[in-house]
Amino acid sequence: MQKKLLEDKLKALLAEDVGQGDVTAYAVIPSDFAVKAEVAAKENGVVAGIEEALTLAQAVGLKAKAHVAEGEEIKNKQVLITISGDAQTILAVERTLLNLLSRMSGIATQTAALRTKLKNAGMKTKIAATRKSAPGLLYFDKKAVAIGGGDPHRLHLDDMILIKDNHLAILGGVETAVKKAKASASFTKKIEVEVTNDADALKAASAGADIIMLDNFSPTQAKATVVKLRKAGFNNVLLEVSGGVTSENLLEFAKAELDIISVGALTHSVKALDISLEIALPK
Amino acid sequence: MQKKLLEDKLKALLAEDVGQGDVTAYAVIPSDFAVKAEVAAKENGVVAGIEEALTLAQAVGLKAKAHVAEGEEIKNKQVLITISGDAQTILAVERTLLNLLSRMSGIATQTAALRTKLKNAGMKTKIAATRKSAPGLLYFDKKAVAIGGGDPHRLHLDDMILIKDNHLAILGGVETAVKKAKASASFTKKIEVEVTNDADALKAASAGADIIMLDNFSPTQAKATVVKLRKAGFNNVLLEVSGGVTSENLLEFAKAELDIISVGALTHSVKALDISLEIALPK
Amino acid sequence: MQKKLLEDKLKALLAEDVGQGDVTAYAVIPSDFAVKAEVAAKENGVVAGIEEALTLAQAVGLKAKAHVAEGEEIKNKQVLITISGDAQTILAVERTLLNLLSRMSGIATQTAALRTKLKNAGMKTKIAATRKSAPGLLYFDKKAVAIGGGDPHRLHLDDMILIKDNHLAILGGVETAVKKAKASASFTKKIEVEVTNDADALKAASAGADIIMLDNFSPTQAKATVVKLRKAGFNNVLLEVSGGVTSENLLEFAKAELDIISVGALTHSVKALDISLEIALPK
Amino acid sequence: MQKKLLEDKLKALLAEDVGQGDVTAYAVIPSDFAVKAEVAAKENGVVAGIEEALTLAQAVGLKAKAHVAEGEEIKNKQVLITISGDAQTILAVERTLLNLLSRMSGIATQTAALRTKLKNAGMKTKIAATRKSAPGLLYFDKKAVAIGGGDPHRLHLDDMILIKDNHLAILGGVETAVKKAKASASFTKKIEVEVTNDADALKAASAGADIIMLDNFSPTQAKATVVKLRKAGFNNVLLEVSGGVTSENLLEFAKAELDIISVGALTHSVKALDISLEIALPK
Amino acid sequence: MQKKLLEDKLKALLAEDVGQGDVTAYAVIPSDFAVKAEVAAKENGVVAGIEEALTLAQAVGLKAKAHVAEGEEIKNKQVLITISGDAQTILAVERTLLNLLSRMSGIATQTAALRTKLKNAGMKTKIAATRKSAPGLLYFDKKAVAIGGGDPHRLHLDDMILIKDNHLAILGGVETAVKKAKASASFTKKIEVEVTNDADALKAASAGADIIMLDNFSPTQAKATVVKLRKAGFNNVLLEVSGGVTSENLLEFAKAELDIISVGALTHSVKALDISLEIALPK
Amino acid sequence: MQKKLLEDKLKALLAEDVGQGDVTAYAVIPSDFAVKAEVAAKENGVVAGIEEALTLAQAVGLKAKAHVAEGEEIKNKQVLITISGDAQTILAVERTLLNLLSRMSGIATQTAALRTKLKNAGMKTKIAATRKSAPGLLYFDKKAVAIGGGDPHRLHLDDMILIKDNHLAILGGVETAVKKAKASASFTKKIEVEVTNDADALKAASAGADIIMLDNFSPTQAKATVVKLRKAGFNNVLLEVSGGVTSENLLEFAKAELDIISVGALTHSVKALDISLEIALPK
Repeated sequence: MQKKLLEDKLKALLAEDVGQGDVTAYAVIPSDFAVKAEVAAKENGVVAGIEEALTLAQAVGLKAKAHVAEGEEIKNKQVLITISGDAQTILAVERTLLNLLSRMSGIATQTAALRTKLKNAGMKTKIAATRKSAPGLLYFDKKAVAIGGGDPHRLHLDDMILIKDNHLAILGGVETAVKKAKASASFTKKIEVEVTNDADALKAASAGADIIMLDNFSPTQAKATVVKLRKAGFNNVLLEVSGGVTSENLLEFAKAELDIISVGALTHSVKALDISLEIALPK
Repeated sequence: MQKKLLEDKLKALLAEDVGQGDVTAYAVIPSDFAVKAEVAAKENGVVAGIEEALTLAQAVGLKAKAHVAEGEEIKNKQVLITISGDAQTILAVERTLLNLLSRMSGIATQTAALRTKLKNAGMKTKIAATRKSAPGLLYFDKKAVAIGGGDPHRLHLDDMILIKDNHLAILGGVETAVKKAKASASFTKKIEVEVTNDADALKAASAGADIIMLDNFSPTQAKATVVKLRKAGFNNVLLEVSGGVTSENLLEFAKAELDIISVGALTHSVKALDISLEIALPK
Repeated sequence: MQKKLLEDKLKALLAEDVGQGDVTAYAVIPSDFAVKAEVAAKENGVVAGIEEALTLAQAVGLKAKAHVAEGEEIKNKQVLITISGDAQTILAVERTLLNLLSRMSGIATQTAALRTKLKNAGMKTKIAATRKSAPGLLYFDKKAVAIGGGDPHRLHLDDMILIKDNHLAILGGVETAVKKAKASASFTKKIEVEVTNDADALKAASAGADIIMLDNFSPTQAKATVVKLRKAGFNNVLLEVSGGVTSENLLEFAKAELDIISVGALTHSVKALDISLEIALPK
Repeated sequence: MQKKLLEDKLKALLAEDVGQGDVTAYAVIPSDFAVKAEVAAKENGVVAGIEEALTLAQAVGLKAKAHVAEGEEIKNKQVLITISGDAQTILAVERTLLNLLSRMSGIATQTAALRTKLKNAGMKTKIAATRKSAPGLLYFDKKAVAIGGGDPHRLHLDDMILIKDNHLAILGGVETAVKKAKASASFTKKIEVEVTNDADALKAASAGADIIMLDNFSPTQAKATVVKLRKAGFNNVLLEVSGGVTSENLLEFAKAELDIISVGALTHSVKALDISLEIALPK
Repeated sequence: MQKKLLEDKLKALLAEDVGQGDVTAYAVIPSDFAVKAEVAAKENGVVAGIEEALTLAQAVGLKAKAHVAEGEEIKNKQVLITISGDAQTILAVERTLLNLLSRMSGIATQTAALRTKLKNAGMKTKIAATRKSAPGLLYFDKKAVAIGGGDPHRLHLDDMILIKDNHLAILGGVETAVKKAKASASFTKKIEVEVTNDADALKAASAGADIIMLDNFSPTQAKATVVKLRKAGFNNVLLEVSGGVTSENLLEFAKAELDIISVGALTHSVKALDISLEIALPK
Repeated sequence: MQKKLLEDKLKALLAEDVGQGDVTAYAVIPSDFAVKAEVAAKENGVVAGIEEALTLAQAVGLKAKAHVAEGEEIKNKQVLITISGDAQTILAVERTLLNLLSRMSGIATQTAALRTKLKNAGMKTKIAATRKSAPGLLYFDKKAVAIGGGDPHRLHLDDMILIKDNHLAILGGVETAVKKAKASASFTKKIEVEVTNDADALKAASAGADIIMLDNFSPTQAKATVVKLRKAGFNNVLLEVSGGVTSENLLEFAKAELDIISVGALTHSVKALDISLEIALPK
């Protein structure tokens, strides 16, 4: 996102956290008192949100400098960012900055872990996010997935055609749905459809879907469906599996030669990476 | 929060997710097509966010009815809410509604688990949240903690005086800090201070702190400090421990006869409760 | 767009127009004075913006009923919408309502005229909009194009990859650009690239572009390029021409068997359709 | 408008266009890559919106310099503005900047054309805009009219008393309406009333209207009414004609010795001036 | 202001007051508990803000009914509005509702007192407000002045030309300033200029000012200036005095036969009218 | 409040006042014309709002320097702030800046007067504000009270538990109410309760209230109640009186040995301090 627009988005998050002002700092910290601070990891992981942290700090008038790049592997105790400026201001942004950085780094760390597993096994399957995220944080969560080496998948409902079980409940069949979408959607949009069995997968491919999502397939079922589709000559349609993927069964799914494996837990059940900010008095 | 103000907050979250409109529903779902939908649990837990889900659904013109109360224990497959109305609208709110409900229920479930553990052991110690949360979601996260039987702790920086390590790095000692706070803060605010050893805990109590946070104390250290403080006659000061608390060591901390145990993971590392929405055609 | 979100968007447009209140109506019109009003065409055309007009009127507490459907051909003097309610309120929304309806109908009318020309000539080529629009009105302008039978093309910069002359000025060649995009963009996005000659068109197709935009090609050049691409076996890549298309040369372009003809003037140089609102006293 | 308030208004327009970020530039353009760009005319006209273009560019951190003044006549290929800075940022603002500049310049060009026609004929009649504009763009449209040498007329409903046909439909006669307005409106507001015949024009003048709008009068009717009013001694009341004015009949209307001729098409049917932005790599 | 736009403005004021929710009501008041409440005067005065109070109450889902009209004289203990609905909601809006109603009624009361004084003395001079008000409350303050029988004067900087001492410090003389304004401002705007002596008043009138403000004139000076201007034939120019007017010297100023007396204290030093809200349990 | 967040709040207030731009300055003042200006007192008092004035001026691109500190006693004619920069910008912010500074200084002046009275009498009782303020200005009003040496009391409904008459009307007795609050509110909140007689005061203290508000007690009643409470051993509960306090009876109340005296008039009936801004041409 353009830096100045990102600033406004971050300031809105900060404003909510600050309320009518930091009564503690106002009560006990002198104003216009310059200090330095270090943002440091308290465990190993993959960092994400450096741009957000710098932009937020700068947006409130602080100086901030990054010592790592987005997506870099970081170690416990490693200094990520140094900040200098007014103490009251640093205290006011501390928690918002850390909350975003820890969440994004937690997401990137988990995404990178899955991706490494695939890479080590020599697989080219992509790891993708879903829209199962925390409300209001889709942009940041998806960006963290991308930084961790995953694919963000669609950002919003206006991005892409994705026909799911609830659409099909209304429309009837996969074929009707895909044809309807092709007829009425803009040519600029890809069309994806969720299927629950291989017959529907074949219908979706015939009807011209760009992407087919195998919903809650076991690795074996997924494998069988991929084989059928490729055998039927559908070599360009992208195949995605979603539902029931864990770190443990990831490689089994990957062996089905799917193009994409999407994992809701990457964004709906985030384990924040432990990162802290320590103020040091200037000597 | 007042229902109409909550509506505006929820519509803002929805607007972000919808972008310029749900291109899928617009392409394939007829307009003004009435359907019913059920929001149901896909695992056991404690539900939170029912008010938010109803308010969001109603804010966009749907009818919605809850079948459970906030904080109730729910079972896999249990129907939580039934919704009826325009299909395109239900599809537009589905993900925002579920994302919030799943997150809040995940938080309530985890809070309730800790609280039950304490209760079963006959302890009256409170479980509290921290401000380590997802940016923009503090209100909802804290509310979920309260629904799960925990204490939300302060909401914003403007709520309460809480003097932490970074304030002390600037101010010098605990005693100075508490005295300064008492002199300049409003009499309407409680004053809490973080300490790292029992000498400071005693100083904080003498200086008149309302609450003392034992930062990263082991259960044994905490116990020793509590004993010293009570022996010194500080019976009214509330004692909180924060840092390093897990489900495993919770009871050990509780045995230290602390008033409050605060747990950052309740809100910074949420495991969303699995909840889904299924549309059914009216018969 | 979801109706309640559309309401908020329309109320923001209204608020800007109203300023601190309609001083004229306040000075001369009694409050709580019920009247009826008719919104009627003053020339022939194709109507668009009925949903917006109804939603705006209802959002401020008026009753409104449409007598035509979106995209319908309308005649001079035809009544499009009837409104009833408080006179001061009708006067306050009159101009915002008409300005939007007239603009959208002007766009739909012009789009439909081009599309009819193609249809009458038996062509299946699509007419598409560009992002050359009025700031802040992209959503409404694109929707009007769709209602007029055109393709809205991408809505925002976040929708789709579209590599244009200015990207190429930085990146060097078309091939590098498309490959880079394929490697880094999400699989959910289509990739379009602008080319200025047929060599680049072939490179773009080989590199895997989903759509190729022939920028400022003459009909003859376009025809030659289409032939070369199809002969080279690129049957699935969509071909779009943009620049220099007018109502006069439209069919010549269409004969080149392009998939899409995009026309900036549809949204950057709109001729508003003449529509008025007349208040009638209830008898 | 004050520059910092204008910045916020322009950033809001930009934010809408950018959505969740420019996925194309993000995918293919390196970050922190400095380039130069030229904004140049692609046809002759009168430029307007230079302040807006500079302010927007600067608001997102670019350097921008104008080579022409607001209202200057410009030639095809003339460079209007040079911009330098981060390539991704230039690409993100390009379309919003050009859309506003092209629209405002289109309005100024058309206004100046009418005004020149009057000036060349030795007339002092003013050309004025109406509120028939694009929703949300009234401020910019009116400013462009002023830059083109026209009068913006009222900006908002809160500016001035303007009693139109719909008010009169409710109130009965012109005389009652003007008297009511004089009695209840602030002395700081001018009072204008629309009339459809010369009897009403005389009543309006007697009742004390500051301005009389001759609604849809032919040049001959307008002339006759002006003569009657002036003969009756109403020398100070301003006379405006509105409706049916075209470039062709403009001088006929002007010969009626009206003070103001207002033309809705100036803002409701804008032909954007063709202006483009080209990036050049720094050498 | 249109009711739905007013609702949004009032809800924004409420949201600021409520913060993250009324912790007291949430802690001690049952939810969905229906009560009645009376808003009653605790001293005599003139009421203003009834529309705001009703609109705010209704905007949050309460029923509210007025027992007095805007501008009515009210007595101590008189019930102004009855409200019924959810207790938590009434408690949440109570203070915002009363603060606005008390302020507006205080302004109307004071305005009416001055106006009555003039009326009783048989004077037709108008009492007007200035822009010396509380930030953000200009709309409500001016409306209260109008309800109290005064003239709101201009609302915003975009309403009218008012050339004051600081403009003249830059421009040099009154004559230049007025001529410049007449040449460049829209014909829809009145032009007012502040003068400090009668020579300037005559120049301003000659230059064509619509209104002349006698700044900080004594009643005697004002009288002399009025006489000179009228004698010089300037019968239509409106004459306003501003500065140093008190309830005590009001009639002396009025005797100078001024058209308008403006009084900053009406809005910058408001004495709120005492109004309270009492909840009664339904029987 | 953090400076950048304060900037946004102040710019919003400015935007409301400016509307679509300062038509006067635009018509008569050259653009990019540098001037200096002095903000000076026109009467004696205590200044507050210097931070707001500087922040607003700087937020719109002006240079501004303070010559007094917040809370300082100032004399008639004393220069408080000097500003330099673009003349149109200074004229655009002049009124918003002065309105806020005058209001805040008026509040601080009145607060300081009461506080001085207590101090001179050797009393340590605190003067506190209430929430009876002007809508939207609570933050600034409370800050001004603090600068004047008073206590801001709670800022918002989310700050503190304060059980008032209307809560008690629903809940029944003081005792139930306080117990309910203690059971359900967060341990981070103080609990205050309003009482109307000494029996209730004793119950409130027994039930564990942190603060007791004696509502509309006479000085004699207050004294008696304080004595009873202290005699009963309630030495830590804070005692506040509210209602009926004037400058005249202040010392009588203070003699009752209350901890806090709260005065609604400090913020609901503000007398603005007279402060003006004069532009001087640079020599």
